[in-house]
Amino acid sequence: MRHFSLELEGLHERLLQMGGLVESAIRKSVRSLVDRDGNVAEQVFQDEERINQLEIEIDNLGTRLLALHQPVARDLRFLTAALKINTDLERMGDLAVNIAERALSLLSFPPIKPLIDIPRMASLVEAMLLRSLDAFVKGDAEIARAVLLSDDEVDDLRDAIYKELVTFMQQDPTTVQCAVDLMFVARDLERIADHATNIAEDVVYLVQGIDVRHRAVEPLER
Amino acid sequence: MRHFSLELEGLHERLLQMGGLVESAIRKSVRSLVDRDGNVAEQVFQDEERINQLEIEIDNLGTRLLALHQPVARDLRFLTAALKINTDLERMGDLAVNIAERALSLLSFPPIKPLIDIPRMASLVEAMLLRSLDAFVKGDAEIARAVLLSDDEVDDLRDAIYKELVTFMQQDPTTVQCAVDLMFVARDLERIADHATNIAEDVVYLVQGIDVRHRAVEPLER
Repeated sequence: MRHFSLELEGLHERLLQMGGLVESAIRKSVRSLVDRDGNVAEQVFQDEERINQLEIEIDNLGTRLLALHQPVARDLRFLTAALKINTDLERMGDLAVNIAERALSLLSFPPIKPLIDIPRMASLVEAMLLRSLDAFVKGDAEIARAVLLSDDEVDDLRDAIYKELVTFMQQDPTTVQCAVDLMFVARDLERIADHATNIAEDVVYLVQGIDVRHRAVEPLER
Repeated sequence: MRHFSLELEGLHERLLQMGGLVESAIRKSVRSLVDRDGNVAEQVFQDEERINQLEIEIDNLGTRLLALHQPVARDLRFLTAALKINTDLERMGDLAVNIAERALSLLSFPPIKPLIDIPRMASLVEAMLLRSLDAFVKGDAEIARAVLLSDDEVDDLRDAIYKELVTFMQQDPTTVQCAVDLMFVARDLERIADHATNIAEDVVYLVQGIDVRHRAVEPLER
């Protein structure tokens, strides 16, 4: 049984390593966009390969532990949560790649406007990811629930970004191609936030055994 | 042990029931778009509630079976695949809702063009989902591998749709709002195809124990 705890700890560490890589890939993808830096975008593509490898490693490790040790109760919840979190992190890596690809595509055009709301949305989304991982590390359901509440703010920013970009396209047809790229970036950021929300939901389930998917979440007092 | 097989069969059935619901929701969402029918869009929102309930039921059932019966080998692979397929199906349900919402939004504008490529893309994507579920029912890795090969065709159609819509927006700024909605529909269909691909990958793993994620797939002879 002590061997099993060690292996669980190893899985936990691997998952955090993956979380760190994904967080860095997201940050770089937004930086490549804001700084118009193609080299940084290329780094994201390299990060993704490592993320994909780690996904498979973690998946194999988690499945093997399920098979060999037949865990129950909290250990079982931890393993099933780890497998889900692993999938969410891998998808986030894919979304960082999407953003980096848009950044490269935007290099062919002069910038249509200084980017303000997109970096703001990105900071919010990165904070959600960091907090959901922090909640997972500490096994803290309160931190996880706070992540769930940020989702509305992300949606509001996305709506503001869409509205502004539609206006741009209507007023100046030469901006259409760039504006479309930026809309998809906003969409990808929103999806990263959704995956952070999934992780936070898994943490609540792991810690409290309560399933908060598809339900309204009570606001926390500050 | 016989009791366990019965429960596995129950899980299998529930998952297929969910697959049927999701498939129907996707079909209705595209119909609401093509026929400009708000009532059909509303049905999709109702379907989604049932899909969300089923997701939680299947997740609980799968996790309970893992805990109680400590399955190994193929039964273990089946259970972990079932949990993943469940997540993919639920996300597809969300995407059908996105499409239905776009369909409602488009009702406020006169149609900018007859929809041809989007229904074509939708047929392809629906066929991918049906085939991935068929592969799961029959435990047939060949059918699953055929699904993986359709993904490129979906991407080509998406590119054609984007290109056409960008041209529309550039030539006539009054089409921007509708064209953006249609672009997001194409994007949602592409993501549904991605989830069908995930299911097909899980089936290959389930049947053959080979992990085909993140790898080139050998083309099948016709």
